[in-house]
Amino acid sequence: MFELHPTLAAGSVAVTRLSLCELRLINDRRFIWLILVPQRPRLTELHQLSESEQQQLLAASGQVSRLIEGYFAVDKLNVGALGNVVPQLHWHIVGRRRDDPCWPGPVWGCASGEPYPSGELERVIATLLEGIEVER
Amino acid sequence: MFELHPTLAAGSVAVTRLSLCELRLINDRRFIWLILVPQRPRLTELHQLSESEQQQLLAASGQVSRLIEGYFAVDKLNVGALGNVVPQLHWHIVGRRRDDPCWPGPVWGCASGEPYPSGELERVIATLLEGIEVER
Repeated sequence: MFELHPTLAAGSVAVTRLSLCELRLINDRRFIWLILVPQRPRLTELHQLSESEQQQLLAASGQVSRLIEGYFAVDKLNVGALGNVVPQLHWHIVGRRRDDPCWPGPVWGCASGEPYPSGELERVIATLLEGIEVER
Repeated sequence: MFELHPTLAAGSVAVTRLSLCELRLINDRRFIWLILVPQRPRLTELHQLSESEQQQLLAASGQVSRLIEGYFAVDKLNVGALGNVVPQLHWHIVGRRRDDPCWPGPVWGCASGEPYPSGELERVIATLLEGIEVER
């Protein structure tokens, strides 16, 4: 049975379900940072998904990427799966800006996250859900 | 017309062609670090590839991932596309070890690369080509 890794559960908030993945927003207001978590147990690497599951993940990643580009002012996207700290397979989609505090370095391991203040997290999630609804 | 970004050309060596991508080895002996570069001009984001091209890239990434796991002693793979420094779309597949100098942080922006000594680069490429040949 699939169970979300406690570190991912603690650091992010569920947005919605996109095909085989749960879409979650990382609670770090420095970036628009989302993760897609395939709801499959015991996976650590992207290539352990079946071909069809990889396609579903990539399709969801593309959808989220377009959403970030359309609704948030970003200069670049960073996408990928690392899993050095949390081995459970999760796919990052991070909107980057040339003036963000970690640019041009990666977000992983870049100082400490800044949780959203009360209300802002809900507003970002509402924007994301609106964008997903419009695309449907 | 596609032309490889000069920074990628300077820091990596061509290994072979895998469907729409050139497979290149990053000249940094701290990691088994490969990149797949789609031979398409003016691309910066993964989702700008067509669905079929994304599938080809993912299939090649899976092939290279299995190769790294099979031929090199690694604990984890890191895969993804960033492009903050070199915007031309290139897909990383990095073999990570718990005792590598950047673990558990990402390889990008982690101190300076260490070029392979003479002969070792050629040996790594030969191993990779052998692995690709075996899989065929």
